[in-house]
Amino acid sequence: MQKGKFITIDGVEGAGKSTQINFIFDYLNNKGINVILTREPGGSDIGEKIRALLLSADSNMHSDTELLLMFAARNEHIHTKILPTLAQGDWVLSDRFTDASYAYQGGGRGLDITRIAQLEDWVLQGFKPDMTLLLDVPVDIGMKRVASRGAKDRIEQEDLSFFKRVRDAYISRSEQYPKRIKLIDASQSAEHTSAQIQTILSTL
Amino acid sequence: MQKGKFITIDGVEGAGKSTQINFIFDYLNNKGINVILTREPGGSDIGEKIRALLLSADSNMHSDTELLLMFAARNEHIHTKILPTLAQGDWVLSDRFTDASYAYQGGGRGLDITRIAQLEDWVLQGFKPDMTLLLDVPVDIGMKRVASRGAKDRIEQEDLSFFKRVRDAYISRSEQYPKRIKLIDASQSAEHTSAQIQTILSTL
Repeated sequence: MQKGKFITIDGVEGAGKSTQINFIFDYLNNKGINVILTREPGGSDIGEKIRALLLSADSNMHSDTELLLMFAARNEHIHTKILPTLAQGDWVLSDRFTDASYAYQGGGRGLDITRIAQLEDWVLQGFKPDMTLLLDVPVDIGMKRVASRGAKDRIEQEDLSFFKRVRDAYISRSEQYPKRIKLIDASQSAEHTSAQIQTILSTL
Repeated sequence: MQKGKFITIDGVEGAGKSTQINFIFDYLNNKGINVILTREPGGSDIGEKIRALLLSADSNMHSDTELLLMFAARNEHIHTKILPTLAQGDWVLSDRFTDASYAYQGGGRGLDITRIAQLEDWVLQGFKPDMTLLLDVPVDIGMKRVASRGAKDRIEQEDLSFFKRVRDAYISRSEQYPKRIKLIDASQSAEHTSAQIQTILSTL
């Protein structure tokens, strides 16, 4: 049933996802590919409301609740937007996807990877991105880049050690799934990152 | 660690839960038992926000999303309210709990019971109510009782056949777990229902 391709982009704060998403969007459009941009948590009406709950600075919650809400939003995203778009032959480019749950709730919060995998199986039932672009940057560089962004959401308020665990978990994921997850050095200029992405996309 | 008892009350709309909850609360208080009243979906700060999402008449969502949100709210309810209250020796009386997910999402929406059980295991990890009072009433009688209540929420807007499936699923649950789930005929007067509940509670 899937005809379009599903590309996700992930990485720690300050890795430059927004800039590269625009680059990828333009690159694919120039190739004549119809692609929609979407994001997680969010990407659907209910998903965006769940996102507001998850990121609100005064939403204290149990880590398992956070993970369940992430997967509730993801389920809605998949069924109302991702699968229907792919089925009609268009491509989907998502700012974050399931790898972020392993990185943030697994690495960052310390949730058991096996339990995350159980929820992934329950919700995704084997569905996976065709390709994941993982923008990697040392946490101190990423943090410097986002320092000027203004008010931080609930997750951005975590400390440096949290984001170091997040980065480590992302890198482990890319080592575990090297065929799907492309680790990209995003520590230099945006142009340097885009050039690597273009090389990778040209293989699709 | 659990020292208090966890009692849940469940059943289709119009079974008289609210009236009987007040009866049980007074009955237990008169016995010198400290009991808190709570409800699902809800029962915590985040849980009440999730409840608003679930019941809003304009929240269309995939059935699996509904189930994941129910369990997200339930996880928060268990960890922030139910377990801490039981641990300090007080009792908890909840208006609806996990059996409602089997009845509404399983019976009503037709979700696979095995998949509901997987989420139950993931979230509850074996935790169960000490006793569940299931108020049973034929759907047509229940519907007549609630007809005067005003605007219906998203789930109350379902049709008669939905609520018949919900009732059937509740009855199946009580047959499967006869020791925990007490099926109570709630088709007659409130006093008639209370008398049955009092007899059952006296065995605790």
